[in-house]
Formats: sequence, C-alpha cells, structure tokens
Amino acid sequence: MNNDVLVVGSVAFDTVENANGKVSRVLGGAASYASICASYFARPSVVAVVGTDFSPKDKAPFLKRGVNLDGLEIREGKTFHWGGCYDKDFNNAVTRFTDLNVFQNFNPVLNERQKNAKAVFLANINPELQLAVLDQVKKPSLVACDTMNYWIASRKKALLEVVKRIDVFFLNEGEARQLTGVYNLIEAGRILLEKGVKYVVIKLGSNGAMLVSKKGIIQLPPYILEHVHDTTGAGDTFGGGFTGYLASLKNWNTLASIKRAMMIGNVMASFTIESFSVDRLAHLTQRDIRKRLNEYTTMLKF
Amino acid sequence: MNNDVLVVGSVAFDTVENANGKVSRVLGGAASYASICASYFARPSVVAVVGTDFSPKDKAPFLKRGVNLDGLEIREGKTFHWGGCYDKDFNNAVTRFTDLNVFQNFNPVLNERQKNAKAVFLANINPELQLAVLDQVKKPSLVACDTMNYWIASRKKALLEVVKRIDVFFLNEGEARQLTGVYNLIEAGRILLEKGVKYVVIKLGSNGAMLVSKKGIIQLPPYILEHVHDTTGAGDTFGGGFTGYLASLKNWNTLASIKRAMMIGNVMASFTIESFSVDRLAHLTQRDIRKRLNEYTTMLKF
Repeated sequence: MNNDVLVVGSVAFDTVENANGKVSRVLGGAASYASICASYFARPSVVAVVGTDFSPKDKAPFLKRGVNLDGLEIREGKTFHWGGCYDKDFNNAVTRFTDLNVFQNFNPVLNERQKNAKAVFLANINPELQLAVLDQVKKPSLVACDTMNYWIASRKKALLEVVKRIDVFFLNEGEARQLTGVYNLIEAGRILLEKGVKYVVIKLGSNGAMLVSKKGIIQLPPYILEHVHDTTGAGDTFGGGFTGYLASLKNWNTLASIKRAMMIGNVMASFTIESFSVDRLAHLTQRDIRKRLNEYTTMLKF
Repeated sequence: MNNDVLVVGSVAFDTVENANGKVSRVLGGAASYASICASYFARPSVVAVVGTDFSPKDKAPFLKRGVNLDGLEIREGKTFHWGGCYDKDFNNAVTRFTDLNVFQNFNPVLNERQKNAKAVFLANINPELQLAVLDQVKKPSLVACDTMNYWIASRKKALLEVVKRIDVFFLNEGEARQLTGVYNLIEAGRILLEKGVKYVVIKLGSNGAMLVSKKGIIQLPPYILEHVHDTTGAGDTFGGGFTGYLASLKNWNTLASIKRAMMIGNVMASFTIESFSVDRLAHLTQRDIRKRLNEYTTMLKF
C-alpha cells in the first residue's frame, strides 16, 4: 500500500476520573488515539469535526506526530465532550455525560486524496456515517472498523451493512456477544465472518486480543504493564496501530501480518494506558516501541 | 529430580450439569485430575481417601496411567461427592452440594517413599492438612500448592503459613484478590512473593495464566479450544501438568522451565475441558500432547 491511512471518527475532549486522579477536558476521541498511534507506522489523515473551542494546544499532539488534519472540520460551537469514570476494574468505564455538541451533525466529507485512500480505519461512530464514508472511498485495499455497544443496540442493521463491506472488525467481548447473541467468542466470531468480514479481532482488555478468521484463530496476551494509569483510548490505540501497521505493508492480507498487527496493537495500547489522554502515546520514539515489541516476543518465545 | 511427584488432595465423585449435558457420580477430585495429568511427564503417586463405594471402575483411569495408588486409603463410608452446575460462562461453577463423607476425616499419612518425594503437589485441601503433609516430606526440591476461596475465607492464617513453605502457588484471579485485598494481579502476586513463595501462578480461566515472580512476569494465552465441554478439573489439570513437567527436569528453578510448565499446564487443561471427568485426559498419547504444544508455540511465534 502507499502508507496512507484514513482515520474517521471523533476528536473530542475527555473528562476522566479514576483511582489515579482526575483530568478535565483533555484531548480524547477515538480518531485522536487511532491516528496518533498509526503515525508511528504510516501517514494518517483524520476526518473529524471539532468546535471553535478546539485550540492550537489541542492540535499540537497531531502536528507533532505528522497527522494530516486537512479533514478536521472546525464548526461553530463546542467540541464533543465525554465524561467518565472507572472503578478499580480499569476495563470498564462508566459514562457520566456525553455532550455531542458539534459532533451530532458530523457529516464526513472526504477530499480527493482521502477518497483514494488505500487503508481506512472507521473508528467508533454511527454506522450510518461509516457507510457514508465507505461510499466515498474509491478503491480501498483495507478497511478496518470499530464500534460500541450503543450502536449495536440502536443501529444494528446499519452496522451489519458495514460488516459486509470491511476487512477487519474490532469489538470487545461484550460487544461480540451483544451483536451475535452468542456467548462463545469463537462462535460469535464465526457468525460475523459469515456476514462478510475477513478478520474479527475481539479485544479482551487486560487479557489481550483474539483473532477469529478463516485462516486461523489466535489469542495473544497483552504487553504486561505493572501500573495502569488510564485505559481510556486503549482500544482505539489498538485499532489505529493495527491498521497503521498493515497500511505500511505490501501485502497485509496474511495470517502472519495480522498476527503481527495484533502484537503491535497490544504493545501500542500499553503506552496509551500509562497516562491520561495521549500524553504518553504522542511522545514515543521508534526505540521505545521496538523495545516493547522485543520484550513481547521474548515473553512468548519457547 | 527423580521424576516422582507426590499428589495430595481429593479423589471424589462429581455430579455436573452444564449446557452440554449432565453426568452423575463420575470420577473427579483435584488429586485425580492432577495425578492423571502429571503421569504424562513424571511418576505420580496419590495420597487421598475414598469410601468403600469407590469401585475398580473408578480406579481404572489411574491404573491405566500408571499412577501409584499405595497412598489411596479406603475408609468405611462414602466417597467425597461434589455437585455443581455451570451457566454459559464455563469459568465459574455454582456448587449445589458438597458431601464430604469420608473426606472430612482425611488425615494424610505418607509412606517412606512418599516422605522422600522430591516434587510435591498439594492440591486444593484444607491448608492445615497441607502443612501436615509438608511436615512429613523430608527434603522436597519443589513444592507446588493450590487452594480455593473457601480456605482463604476460613483458614487464611494456615494458608499463609503454607505460602511461606512452598515454591509455586496456583490461584485464580478472584482468589488472588481475595487473599491479598488488592485488585491489580501483579501487585497481588508481589504481596504473595513477599510472604515467601517463589512463583505465583494466577490462573485466568479462558484467558490462560499469568506468572508473577522475581525473575519476571509472564502472561500466556490458553490453548484455543473451539468447543468447551466441561471445565471441571481444568485448574487441577493445569497444576498437575505444571508440577509433573517440572518434576521431570534436572533444574526446574529457571524462568524458562516455569514458562514451559505454564504452557504445558495450559495445553493439558485443554484436554480436560473436552469431556466430562477424565474421559479425555486419561486417554492421551504423547503425540496428542506434542501436537498441541506445537500448535501453541506456532501460534505465539513471530
């Protein structure tokens, strides 16, 4: 592929509280985590919308990482603002408020370059918007997609239309069960394969991730972190790293590539959860990443 | 070591019901699973007690696998009988009844050969009995120990005495949290290391297992099984395979050995959960085991 990866989703502010403290109105949103993560492997461009309160300071992490923001629309009003908190189980957030603000009228329009994107990551947004994006992209080689319980409950039909048209589908355990009505994750994955997607990647939180595909089933552990600071954005980081890595390959469509993409997703997520927001994720060196990838493969070597 | 491994624990009857069906009064008990599993790597001998209702048919799986039953005491009365059921989440059993029967007066007495055992697996029993066994074993090179929530709640002090005197401690996530009062599993493991055990192995059910030790922290995924039949005994199998494998080594006390023992525990547990009772576990060939070990290492190779 040409190394470009188009990321469509939310750029937002987060207000998060957990056992490690509280932050207010810090940079968040699935497209932020995903694109900043993807920047270590590919050239991401973002399609999202923010309000006039989105400051140069908020843009800085993207620019530092060379993320193309031509598709970041600035609209009169306030930026999407999510508030949530975590109990000692960092895997599950409890939402306190969701102020969609300008995001409720988000209508992704791609420019010419974006329409020619070879790799696309549809971060967690309304599946109807995901379909609208797919209608604009001319000939993608790789489309990956994330979702959440809210869309499964409210837009299941549209989501299943999306599933037909994508290559990689990220969802967590609960979402896989909710969408398919089946408890066993492998069976759930198989049902989704039947609907047309090639690779189902079930994110297992602190237990890593599982791949269900016709080429094989794989379960990989997480990169082990002794101290978890904040898991917000970990799944988006996983998806961004996974897709960005594949976008850098000549042939992404092999089991070996997908397995490596899972490892990269796991390792990149470990950086995100070491801080609030993208504070850690946006300031990595290739050496930081290589070191963890080496530790990871060493852990799994027999 | 000399390849002998002493297994002390319960030999019992299980009545189990789950989504796949129901079985009544089939062979169960932690020492059964553990010793039969260990027999593929070492020469296990069992110390346990059963009632006069324990028939030659019930003994057959042990004898088939060459498990030494010199220490299987037969006492007037009925054999320990456990009844439980599983919801669709096979990781958690709900106990329906626990008829201890002759087991309530279990008082493990070792013969001379057993007293000289180099490797000991203290399966899940009252920690006071585990201490009584440790007092009889002369100079063990390796002592591994399992427990359960019941003993953590009712015999915590004795259990912590056990922890001081063992090398490897198996427990599941909930038990690790219950025993230490700490949610983070790595922190929980570290607390137990401080109490004197060398290797804390936290069993993660369908997510594999995690090792916490001063030599390193490792998390390994399970061997993936598409269809789970019954998870009863999976943890005991894990412990038995782990300890049996280590008993076959000259030097078990290295991180590489422990990691391999974890893999073996995971793979052996996958056989147990393919059937009720020891139906599958007791009828394996070395080739069956090698095949899964190869698939496992292939899955984790990058």
